[in-house]
Amino acid sequence: MHTTVGIIGGGPAGLLLARLLHLAGIDSVVLESRDRAYVEQRQRAGILEQGAVDVLRECGAGERMDREGLVHDGIELRFDRRSHRIDFPSLTGGRRVMVYAQTEVVKDLIALRFRQGGGPLLFEAQARAVTGIDTDQPVVHFTHEGGERTLTCDYVVGCDGFHGITRAAMPGLTTYERTYPYSWLGIMADVPPSCDELIYAHSERGFALHSMRSPTVSRIYLQVPNGTDPAQWPDERIWDELDARFAVDGDWKLERGPITAKSVLPMRSFVAEPMRHGRVFLAGDAAHIVPPTGAKGLNLAFSDVVVLARAFAHLHATGSAELLDEYSATCLRRAWRAEHFSYFMTTTLHTDPAQSPFDTRLQLSQLDRIATGTAAATELAENYTGLPIG
Amino acid sequence: MHTTVGIIGGGPAGLLLARLLHLAGIDSVVLESRDRAYVEQRQRAGILEQGAVDVLRECGAGERMDREGLVHDGIELRFDRRSHRIDFPSLTGGRRVMVYAQTEVVKDLIALRFRQGGGPLLFEAQARAVTGIDTDQPVVHFTHEGGERTLTCDYVVGCDGFHGITRAAMPGLTTYERTYPYSWLGIMADVPPSCDELIYAHSERGFALHSMRSPTVSRIYLQVPNGTDPAQWPDERIWDELDARFAVDGDWKLERGPITAKSVLPMRSFVAEPMRHGRVFLAGDAAHIVPPTGAKGLNLAFSDVVVLARAFAHLHATGSAELLDEYSATCLRRAWRAEHFSYFMTTTLHTDPAQSPFDTRLQLSQLDRIATGTAAATELAENYTGLPIG
Repeated sequence: MHTTVGIIGGGPAGLLLARLLHLAGIDSVVLESRDRAYVEQRQRAGILEQGAVDVLRECGAGERMDREGLVHDGIELRFDRRSHRIDFPSLTGGRRVMVYAQTEVVKDLIALRFRQGGGPLLFEAQARAVTGIDTDQPVVHFTHEGGERTLTCDYVVGCDGFHGITRAAMPGLTTYERTYPYSWLGIMADVPPSCDELIYAHSERGFALHSMRSPTVSRIYLQVPNGTDPAQWPDERIWDELDARFAVDGDWKLERGPITAKSVLPMRSFVAEPMRHGRVFLAGDAAHIVPPTGAKGLNLAFSDVVVLARAFAHLHATGSAELLDEYSATCLRRAWRAEHFSYFMTTTLHTDPAQSPFDTRLQLSQLDRIATGTAAATELAENYTGLPIG
Repeated sequence: MHTTVGIIGGGPAGLLLARLLHLAGIDSVVLESRDRAYVEQRQRAGILEQGAVDVLRECGAGERMDREGLVHDGIELRFDRRSHRIDFPSLTGGRRVMVYAQTEVVKDLIALRFRQGGGPLLFEAQARAVTGIDTDQPVVHFTHEGGERTLTCDYVVGCDGFHGITRAAMPGLTTYERTYPYSWLGIMADVPPSCDELIYAHSERGFALHSMRSPTVSRIYLQVPNGTDPAQWPDERIWDELDARFAVDGDWKLERGPITAKSVLPMRSFVAEPMRHGRVFLAGDAAHIVPPTGAKGLNLAFSDVVVLARAFAHLHATGSAELLDEYSATCLRRAWRAEHFSYFMTTTLHTDPAQSPFDTRLQLSQLDRIATGTAAATELAENYTGLPIG
């Protein structure tokens, strides 16, 4: 089998790339190791930046998102029993975010691929190796329907996540990493959200985040020590702890409901440089990981593939590889910005087990500044709603 | 001896307070442990915020400052061999800073005190203890001209610095502290500054700051390990190292000249809360220390005494202690903001011996954002030129 662009990984990055390439008249093959049902239900991110929303609309994948997604004009910060709202449109010249789960984006993009074409999208197609990465025709070796297959490509793009094989096949990468001394316990609960917008809560007991998946499903996270077993957190304990962390002066009540899922998420920052070797490219989590506090992971993956699709389209239309040559530097600059913002949100809001009372006071001074100073609030809002792509 | 306000410490905070009290018709006595010559030549800070400049002018201490001081409209950031200027007036609605050495401010305030009165200013008056701090008449015990003396006061203000006796006499304070894993080697050189504005340089070799005291005297700092002996740094080594740290693409040359002083400055953050116990108050370094990177120490001392003088004037005019009661909370909020900004400038620009390549990339991303994003540059400029007092 031969294709122009072989895409390893059928998550949101790989699927969006395939869609954008199709619209540019470029064929691709997407290899996804899991089955469709798994991909369509795995819980991941839920916040789309303005730029990501725009891209999904432009590529024809925005219809259900616009119908079912929740447009959010701000977030709430809680600290020191105070509440402060960050209003995005007024701080950013009209930018907003959309609450629409990654798993729904994936469903929409899969449906589009099958309905409108662009090339094969193979499930349970497990990429094993990429060879010939220094040649003009790299080859992806994969298993599918019980057999060993090969996919010969003009270009290969690894959208296969942090544990994927593509990055491992690229020699000479420099990697940067940071782990955080805490994790998130994430729950899904069948209860209407107790807030209209996300609440980011700083507390000396640890960070908490109230998010939502729909008008009837709450998605809530709380900081827990690394190595936490969800079994240590019976439902009652979770709700009691959330009550304490979200505590605020004035009227507010956290509604409780049946918890339908619990899982522990590690917090890691990771960047691999460069994001290209010859005709092999990395995009999304395969190249960089952010802690989830800034809601940047999915959005960064989308901005990578938008830049990459533009570069392939430019090559296709003009024969010039100029934009492909700039791909890594363009994306890494935005990736490092997102790394910094995610680090900033994470370390400003979480309680490091080793932090001193001085450090806590610095966090509170930073939060107070965001709540009272336009420049600091603007800096947060611009980063949160997303910087320009490319 | 009796006075309304006994001021322990004749540095800039104590001297400015005495001046402001005098203008409000309130008498004071200033006790300074050193002799006048020492106080008038000890090298300290050199950057006055817009608000500090305004206060010095308003109280009649601005004449020589306006003649000899250097108004600066910005600073230069250097990183990654790039140079970027932060323009203060355009980002802050017209705010600037003044380069005028603390030692000159001290000379001007001492001269004013002796010329225009307000009460005694005693040199070589060493405060030993403050007693009766829970009474209406606290007493300062001090030695002067070979004898033990007492100063009975309606109020006592400790402007006696980090190592002063006033804070030690106040029970029940909570203290917050942070030390940094590096120091500054500061030099004074008889050479015209190689720049019109201060240069803050990030380098993997460590931070460097090019400042100046006058059109013919340069004041330059470079990050060194804690415990550094200035003797390890012959002049040649200093200049060579500065050349490396200030290196930038494009034309720029660091002029060398005779180094007339070398000293090592530790970097510490410290806050004591509250800043008042009964009729005893703390102001300036006696209550809080910042690392020098943000040029906030002297300015914070000035804003403390401005708030305090207003409160005494209010009491004097109306009989209401309302503003005195708010003094600690008002000043601490601003102090924590300065602590955070100083921490931010310090950790963004210095190389922690323990920092990873990831951390370095975060610093560079933050600096790049300041260089390219208006909100981040505004946040820096507003904090640097100084937030409103009170």
